[in-house]
Amino acid sequence: MDVALRRGWSLTTAFPFMISRRTLSLFWRCGAGTPWPPAPTGRRGAAAPRRHAHSGASEGTERSPGAAPERLPFSRLSQEDLAFFRETLPGGAITDPDLLEAHNVDWLKSVRGHGELLLRPQTTAQVSEILRYCNDRNLAVNPQGGNTGLVGGSVPVYDEIILSTALLNNILTFDPVSGILTCQAGCVLEGLSGYLEEQDFIMPLDLGAKGSCHIGGNVATNAGGLRLLRYGSLRGTVLGLEVVLADGRVLDCLSTLRKDNTGYDLKQLFIGSEGTLGVITAVSVLCPRKPSAVHVAFLGCQTFEQLLGTFKLCKGMLGEILSAFEFLDAACMGLLNTHLKLPNPITDCPFYIVIETSGSNSAHDEEKLHNFLEEAMTSSLVTDGTVASDDTKVKALWSMRERVTEALTHDGYTYKYDVSLPVEGLYQLVTATRDHLGSRAKNVVGYGHSLSWPVCVCVCVCVCVCARATN
Amino acid sequence: MDVALRRGWSLTTAFPFMISRRTLSLFWRCGAGTPWPPAPTGRRGAAAPRRHAHSGASEGTERSPGAAPERLPFSRLSQEDLAFFRETLPGGAITDPDLLEAHNVDWLKSVRGHGELLLRPQTTAQVSEILRYCNDRNLAVNPQGGNTGLVGGSVPVYDEIILSTALLNNILTFDPVSGILTCQAGCVLEGLSGYLEEQDFIMPLDLGAKGSCHIGGNVATNAGGLRLLRYGSLRGTVLGLEVVLADGRVLDCLSTLRKDNTGYDLKQLFIGSEGTLGVITAVSVLCPRKPSAVHVAFLGCQTFEQLLGTFKLCKGMLGEILSAFEFLDAACMGLLNTHLKLPNPITDCPFYIVIETSGSNSAHDEEKLHNFLEEAMTSSLVTDGTVASDDTKVKALWSMRERVTEALTHDGYTYKYDVSLPVEGLYQLVTATRDHLGSRAKNVVGYGHSLSWPVCVCVCVCVCVCARATN
Repeated sequence: MDVALRRGWSLTTAFPFMISRRTLSLFWRCGAGTPWPPAPTGRRGAAAPRRHAHSGASEGTERSPGAAPERLPFSRLSQEDLAFFRETLPGGAITDPDLLEAHNVDWLKSVRGHGELLLRPQTTAQVSEILRYCNDRNLAVNPQGGNTGLVGGSVPVYDEIILSTALLNNILTFDPVSGILTCQAGCVLEGLSGYLEEQDFIMPLDLGAKGSCHIGGNVATNAGGLRLLRYGSLRGTVLGLEVVLADGRVLDCLSTLRKDNTGYDLKQLFIGSEGTLGVITAVSVLCPRKPSAVHVAFLGCQTFEQLLGTFKLCKGMLGEILSAFEFLDAACMGLLNTHLKLPNPITDCPFYIVIETSGSNSAHDEEKLHNFLEEAMTSSLVTDGTVASDDTKVKALWSMRERVTEALTHDGYTYKYDVSLPVEGLYQLVTATRDHLGSRAKNVVGYGHSLSWPVCVCVCVCVCVCARATN
Repeated sequence: MDVALRRGWSLTTAFPFMISRRTLSLFWRCGAGTPWPPAPTGRRGAAAPRRHAHSGASEGTERSPGAAPERLPFSRLSQEDLAFFRETLPGGAITDPDLLEAHNVDWLKSVRGHGELLLRPQTTAQVSEILRYCNDRNLAVNPQGGNTGLVGGSVPVYDEIILSTALLNNILTFDPVSGILTCQAGCVLEGLSGYLEEQDFIMPLDLGAKGSCHIGGNVATNAGGLRLLRYGSLRGTVLGLEVVLADGRVLDCLSTLRKDNTGYDLKQLFIGSEGTLGVITAVSVLCPRKPSAVHVAFLGCQTFEQLLGTFKLCKGMLGEILSAFEFLDAACMGLLNTHLKLPNPITDCPFYIVIETSGSNSAHDEEKLHNFLEEAMTSSLVTDGTVASDDTKVKALWSMRERVTEALTHDGYTYKYDVSLPVEGLYQLVTATRDHLGSRAKNVVGYGHSLSWPVCVCVCVCVCVCARATN
């Protein structure tokens, strides 16, 4: 067994105070006396990664011992434990290292754990049995959804048991009148979207990882995604949750009322708590009607100030039909061209914007969009652009934003940070990081959402520092 | 001192498990072995109500002893306590019974308490000092905002100290770019709306009591109000809170980030907890831009099924510009005519609807509204209607819905229940109550919001049972 290198955490009542994985992850990265960024180290220990990366990047790096938080005194997995899990989950207790591999390494392949057991329950009762047993035995547990997180929060730190929601994947109910969907936590976001679109509805959130991420993981991490601007956060659209607590008790907050003021809204504590308070097993979500008209504009700007000016203008002129405003910089575009062969649909610019409108009347929306674009071009905020309304072209334009993270994984070791900043200072973070790292970084790029207009507004910017690949 | 008649509660750590005032209130009304509805009883005790009602209704009734929950063993106010509060709040510790009266009786004048001390702090530090002292002395506290609640949750049950937020009434910051307002909890909603409108913004909530209710009370009760359909619940629009806990500790969650995933979102626990977990002292709210076009339609339907059909139709045809859908029945209209002399703006119908649209392009909105109304009339969902877009007429039409509660107070003892029900069964509650009560009730009326379309969707219906006035 390899020596554990990050501070352990676990879903257990033995843990004196639960803290967010993300907090821990950031703590490790920025603190603990290690140089930043830590140099990629060689592989050590018995459980070296076996999964092949689809680029020159390593497949999950070890930590330098100086950065190592301590493994807390959780029990080690015994043969009796394995026997219990095999009996509880026939065929769903996996110890084959090849099968475990994909669950120990994160999507960016930047961190890896050494879980020796993967559990794949199919029912809430099974999750409850697992957690009750683990709590009694003081075994650490790592809940895992689609393992698409980019901050190292979805894989074990040491030898935690990996509790996957992958087989909790049934849609339980959908009411096509109210638009309320109730499903198990392991349903894949894209699968839910496809199911809903057939019934003329959409999910209130959308994100690049939709093909793999689980709705339970989306809720546990309070994912914002590409539709936050229009449909708001999951705190408003998630109507109910079913959660299994650390000791196996099932908390049924699976309400389907749009407003429920009976008692405290306990489910809110689990939204964004990243599995530290319990395992989400089912979710009910208020889904909006599929808009009858969707338009996407892909625009280019010369400066970040012009990009912000464009945001302000479109907030005013597109108003209630504006459903997304995203940006990427020229470095992202370069990576999309180089690694994914995606051609720039417009002339080269330092900054690019993806604007989406969704409405109930295509003619009205087109007129609003036309007026906005005319104003944006006349006032020189935007120097080039293209607009699409048919489904294929809309998807192609969206892929310029959605596939940036994928392009980065082909470029080298990637360190990605989701940061909330007042929007006008957002890009300074990218340039300051670029200046600070100089030739030590292969690329420093910025892309993300601009959720609302300026100061003191949350903005997610992804600063990806791609260190030079070593293999 | 009068014997306390409802189960006591208090903001103190001595209370083993905090429960919502509203829950208690409902418990008292529907349970505890008393006949429902309880007959209005005569006034008893030393602290008989002195305030004059503006109708024949009584000014706060006593409970029948059979319905009386027990007063918990809190301390009684001593001369030393009074001296402490007078020193802590010079001029803000009030014991004059005439001044206390308005704070002991609720807006509907259906319940009354016997608080002997009203505290009016001006700063968070003062609230903290008060609560620390009360906690140490085991004195029960009743936080109070505008005292506009209709369910008896805002006045003392026994002799609790009334902690009013009325002088916590400063706007702290407003950023006209992001639309984020930060203010003290005692700011009156209408005052905030007026302040924002000057800067081309609006509050994300609006309700009939806006002229008196405090934003802190709105948040503490998770008020939905008339704009919920468009701007969502306070869980999404409240970005931050400052709260003083029962022992005087100040919890600073006064974030102004639109998405803040650092740690658990503790502020959510206080939204809707009705002061049972702490006293909200400041709030930051994300305010939407003032829409450039607002239209209001007042329509009449022959049946509740047609009303629901109209809701479904307008959800589809008005889409993103629909900002409110409210209803009232013919009995409400009768009370508006009789007591407030408000004339029916259309022909008499069993049901009336108020529909509001808000958008960025008046011509587009008018076209959508015209198309919808044509379809609603052609398909006989609606039999009569009128539309307004200028401010005075819009307000006049809105008052038909907003002043129903006021009209009821002129009619007799009013028992009002906010109930969340699947929408298609909503009006059955009114007719069933009417049938059940027969001649024992003067009026049973239904009005409220239809927040989203049908089954398993929250609907607030106010069933007002106006018992025959006895004086």
